[in-house]
Amino acid sequence: MTDVLRVGIVGAGGYTGSELLRLCQGHPRLSVEFVAARDNAGKALGDVLPSVLGVPELAGRLLERFEPEQARNLAGRIDVAFTALPHAASAKVAAALWQQGIQVIDLSADYRLRDAEVYERTYGPHPHPELLETAVYGLVELHRDALRGARLIAAPGCYPTSAILPLAPLLANQLVELEGIIIDAKSGVSGAGRKPLPSTHFSECSEGLRPYKVAGAHRHTPEIEQELGRLAGAPLQVVFTPNLCPMTRGILAVAYARAKPSTTLAQCVEAARQMFGSTLVHVLEEALPDTLWVRGSACAHVAYRIDERTRTVLAMCTLDNLAKGASSQALQALNAARGWDDALGLPRIAMFP
Amino acid sequence: MTDVLRVGIVGAGGYTGSELLRLCQGHPRLSVEFVAARDNAGKALGDVLPSVLGVPELAGRLLERFEPEQARNLAGRIDVAFTALPHAASAKVAAALWQQGIQVIDLSADYRLRDAEVYERTYGPHPHPELLETAVYGLVELHRDALRGARLIAAPGCYPTSAILPLAPLLANQLVELEGIIIDAKSGVSGAGRKPLPSTHFSECSEGLRPYKVAGAHRHTPEIEQELGRLAGAPLQVVFTPNLCPMTRGILAVAYARAKPSTTLAQCVEAARQMFGSTLVHVLEEALPDTLWVRGSACAHVAYRIDERTRTVLAMCTLDNLAKGASSQALQALNAARGWDDALGLPRIAMFP
Amino acid sequence: MTDVLRVGIVGAGGYTGSELLRLCQGHPRLSVEFVAARDNAGKALGDVLPSVLGVPELAGRLLERFEPEQARNLAGRIDVAFTALPHAASAKVAAALWQQGIQVIDLSADYRLRDAEVYERTYGPHPHPELLETAVYGLVELHRDALRGARLIAAPGCYPTSAILPLAPLLANQLVELEGIIIDAKSGVSGAGRKPLPSTHFSECSEGLRPYKVAGAHRHTPEIEQELGRLAGAPLQVVFTPNLCPMTRGILAVAYARAKPSTTLAQCVEAARQMFGSTLVHVLEEALPDTLWVRGSACAHVAYRIDERTRTVLAMCTLDNLAKGASSQALQALNAARGWDDALGLPRIAMFP
Amino acid sequence: MTDVLRVGIVGAGGYTGSELLRLCQGHPRLSVEFVAARDNAGKALGDVLPSVLGVPELAGRLLERFEPEQARNLAGRIDVAFTALPHAASAKVAAALWQQGIQVIDLSADYRLRDAEVYERTYGPHPHPELLETAVYGLVELHRDALRGARLIAAPGCYPTSAILPLAPLLANQLVELEGIIIDAKSGVSGAGRKPLPSTHFSECSEGLRPYKVAGAHRHTPEIEQELGRLAGAPLQVVFTPNLCPMTRGILAVAYARAKPSTTLAQCVEAARQMFGSTLVHVLEEALPDTLWVRGSACAHVAYRIDERTRTVLAMCTLDNLAKGASSQALQALNAARGWDDALGLPRIAMFP
Repeated sequence: MTDVLRVGIVGAGGYTGSELLRLCQGHPRLSVEFVAARDNAGKALGDVLPSVLGVPELAGRLLERFEPEQARNLAGRIDVAFTALPHAASAKVAAALWQQGIQVIDLSADYRLRDAEVYERTYGPHPHPELLETAVYGLVELHRDALRGARLIAAPGCYPTSAILPLAPLLANQLVELEGIIIDAKSGVSGAGRKPLPSTHFSECSEGLRPYKVAGAHRHTPEIEQELGRLAGAPLQVVFTPNLCPMTRGILAVAYARAKPSTTLAQCVEAARQMFGSTLVHVLEEALPDTLWVRGSACAHVAYRIDERTRTVLAMCTLDNLAKGASSQALQALNAARGWDDALGLPRIAMFP
Repeated sequence: MTDVLRVGIVGAGGYTGSELLRLCQGHPRLSVEFVAARDNAGKALGDVLPSVLGVPELAGRLLERFEPEQARNLAGRIDVAFTALPHAASAKVAAALWQQGIQVIDLSADYRLRDAEVYERTYGPHPHPELLETAVYGLVELHRDALRGARLIAAPGCYPTSAILPLAPLLANQLVELEGIIIDAKSGVSGAGRKPLPSTHFSECSEGLRPYKVAGAHRHTPEIEQELGRLAGAPLQVVFTPNLCPMTRGILAVAYARAKPSTTLAQCVEAARQMFGSTLVHVLEEALPDTLWVRGSACAHVAYRIDERTRTVLAMCTLDNLAKGASSQALQALNAARGWDDALGLPRIAMFP
Repeated sequence: MTDVLRVGIVGAGGYTGSELLRLCQGHPRLSVEFVAARDNAGKALGDVLPSVLGVPELAGRLLERFEPEQARNLAGRIDVAFTALPHAASAKVAAALWQQGIQVIDLSADYRLRDAEVYERTYGPHPHPELLETAVYGLVELHRDALRGARLIAAPGCYPTSAILPLAPLLANQLVELEGIIIDAKSGVSGAGRKPLPSTHFSECSEGLRPYKVAGAHRHTPEIEQELGRLAGAPLQVVFTPNLCPMTRGILAVAYARAKPSTTLAQCVEAARQMFGSTLVHVLEEALPDTLWVRGSACAHVAYRIDERTRTVLAMCTLDNLAKGASSQALQALNAARGWDDALGLPRIAMFP
Repeated sequence: MTDVLRVGIVGAGGYTGSELLRLCQGHPRLSVEFVAARDNAGKALGDVLPSVLGVPELAGRLLERFEPEQARNLAGRIDVAFTALPHAASAKVAAALWQQGIQVIDLSADYRLRDAEVYERTYGPHPHPELLETAVYGLVELHRDALRGARLIAAPGCYPTSAILPLAPLLANQLVELEGIIIDAKSGVSGAGRKPLPSTHFSECSEGLRPYKVAGAHRHTPEIEQELGRLAGAPLQVVFTPNLCPMTRGILAVAYARAKPSTTLAQCVEAARQMFGSTLVHVLEEALPDTLWVRGSACAHVAYRIDERTRTVLAMCTLDNLAKGASSQALQALNAARGWDDALGLPRIAMFP
């Protein structure tokens, strides 16, 4: 096959990096040619990510240190870069690579928001506000056309993906009211990253379930509102509650919205079916979703119910926060940008159990 | 001490039974004199509940089979009975014991609802509807006066306790609207009981998080509405969503209600402080609650936040579903009925971690 | 590619079946054409294994009921069958398919033992003892030559694989004594299968760690002794202790053997390197193995240490019981039988975390 | 009751401190009067250990900073101190308190070894080697007489307790050979303490099982050999393998020893029964032990089997590493020192599940 893309991963030592490597290995048109990490530069990849020990040509590769000013060196070496660094740092690296003509899929929050002021309120000053309108939000199910040929792609956050997917068909089809949307999302601990913290210490996570950054404090809230507002054709505000759940992978979002007077469950389901032509979002009908059913897979599941007594629509979604919530989503966006099938090279069967 | 009560437990082989035994062992005025179980009658208690092997006088005791018509035999043998059987069965046993003058704390759903019609719609015909108005709902924080001297007590369900406690001060003080209350509760797996089922199989619970019986389908919904409606002084309807979470113990309920125009966070917190004079419900201020902090303890934690953008009150609660959600709640109700201190003999320090 | 093999899976509704489907989906030369299950015949595969919902052409396929006498119907329909039924049942189905010229990889214990008497003592009478010498033990690292072209392959058990792999280089090279070998193996719960049992109930597995079937009682002991004795050139007996560990996937075996007087750690490591030319067994040197590092991957890790004070060799191995301990091992054996690269189409990067 | 002892805890902010507080709360003759911690001095106890929030008089107490030179200040304030600091630091604090006439139960490793040279090889120079022969090893089942009236007690380590208890009756009764003893122990993660580390990060512990510090590298090995050698009447060496297991609490030790020619299983069981008159070690006969059965309890379980083919005795033990492996053991030793019943105030029923 002539068009195998040469891939670079900047930020390969964390969990999204590990998952990118696993997924690239299974993709027929990608070949990982460059891996960099901040804290572990100089070490062999296999010493940092023991999951790759079975692939000696990867395991022995040394993690490089990579700064934006070195982007020129990568110009002829890679075709596409996945950047997965902390915010602001990621923006700089991504911009530098993009300026060298390298296609960039950034997994940080840096290019997800359209409005530089909203970004600044949430994360601080943006290093490259001029690129915000160039970047395309990499949720393929909603931005397929814009992604075609895109060279700077912002892979969506895990929580936003789980919140946007189930609500999108309802808002796009005026099936629910814009006011009063509540999203109660529950995430596995890997979403908090690889750095050991008191809040991610095994003995205090196991058997521990807790809400955090509630009542508008979580940084993913503006991203959710941006995308949902765009679909609804009007600005809206949501209550977003993240909860930390004693499991490693997976997000379950349960969203609550007030049904419009004539809305039926069948309409909700049909709207979702229409919107998700993609094979990577599956609309459940009889079953309710379970994070275990999508673990390790590039698929998300959505499901709907109406509480008829109160006329509340429940829009539910499960996905693997490191796959459809991060790394497989990035590859899916790349597939879409290149005009390939959404699911090319991506795992569609979950690791069960 | 002269007044040690002789205790009988009917339904000792399950998880609430196991927890009752643990808690009675630590209580200075209770002595377990009779243990019965349906499926394991004839076996030694220690063979059914290996957790009691450290107490030979309990471990060697044989589990008896107990039918309502044998209640007379227990009349002089025990002073108080905890009944923890499936619904309908529990009602019959509890009634028979009560008729013999034995004080009964029933841990099933049978005597929790005031309205026999509501019970019938939810569980089927009630064997003793005439006792529904005699029974007192055993949530001490709300029914302290009625519990004093009560001889038939319905220990509340685990989900209802977690939903009612945080909302009670808000509704009793008209701090929130009655319409639009949403309760998203997450429970550990022990709430599903001891019987092995596909839904409680380790390999499909671990790393699995799922909603179930949503949109009004869960049987605890009427119990929640009964108590909240009573506090509000008007009937109300809630959206109640239970979620199964990969941990053994613990419930986290996050309730959402629309703030009245002038409601402040300080008012919510103060209302809770006023209501929960009891040492067994602690109002958190800076911290958000965590199930791990109450595991194995008789305490519940509640906390409040207001999402000011949408004027939504978040009322949160954590408790141990087998303790404050079942067995320690039953003992707390007994303490209240006897005029003892709420916390007498109950663990107030959690097993952490 | 012209030679895509048509695959049938008999026993598709369990965990090894689920894993076979996941792995076949990623294999470039396999196409699943037939799926059967005993208990769930007539249901759609996606209703039994929700992990395949992302592949509609699989999810919608109906699980067939399959009895040995129907083997003829499959003759022209599939090229290779994976059979994963309870012992004795699996033997019959495998034999019937084999007689129709279909290549069979059996994942049960039925064709693993060479000696029909040993089989009978362990499992009861063998339905097809005449096939025992035809079947090849599918541990590619030890039977590569015999597997080439094999048409009846017995995929090894999960515990035996974890015990045999680390000890094989030591015994084949006379580095340890034959007497006094102790194997202490710890397994995740998925090894116990999909049927809900008290011993696999979430609430009693989580935070529960226990030995079971110790002191020669576990059925995998003869299989371990057969293969190790063959390598040692003399019969031997091992102490094998299985332990159930609160995790879903993974086995860690720690084997203890007395070092021969001149044995060095370097010799042990070198012997392992020589034996495992295969890319699917990786010899760790500095690190000790961890089940998380091989989860979902077709790789096993082995490591060695010598306790110099007592001259005891520790031979350690980790693998995924459903992958290298079952399903990926079966595909690896098929690869070897067909003369393909061992790792063709198999995941070599673990799902981490 | 006149003789309530006033308790001080130095090192109250960690997991053994948390467990000491829980257990002291349930003990009728102990009252916690002083709490100190190194890292969290100045904070309210309830902010550091949210498990105590249900006991306002504890939760509001400020954690003090405590240095050895302040011991005089505590002289009239507390009767007994539990010290739970890192090694060397604990020795200094314990010695200073002991010199003030305060009874000290030290939970560190500092006073467990009788031989200062062995201590130095293992941990570095001992700050108070002159006290080593004064200190009594606090394993009540083995040192009951010496503990009576003891004022400086070294509470045993969690791994040593789990290894010594099951082997003690065998060695004391010459039922097994001294050579070739192998101990394969599996521990929950709380044994690693409260400080977040990569090795205790939730996402890398869950589903991860791994040996560590094998082949004599673990510091608990000399402590095990000291006590077992004392019982055997001759020095001996063991192979000790610790494994980290994805659960919070619990240790399972499986020890392997060669049976003497005439040794029977009945002799092993009887020897254990004779030795463990204490109600806090229970000898299982039909069942094999399970960590879940002793979680949160002061009890240990031991069980025996003989692998007759190889004449290997399996001596198994389960206990809660934070209770019988640390904090309840410390209280049990205090009970013994004071002449109280072993189990006074200690939980003997496990938290199950």
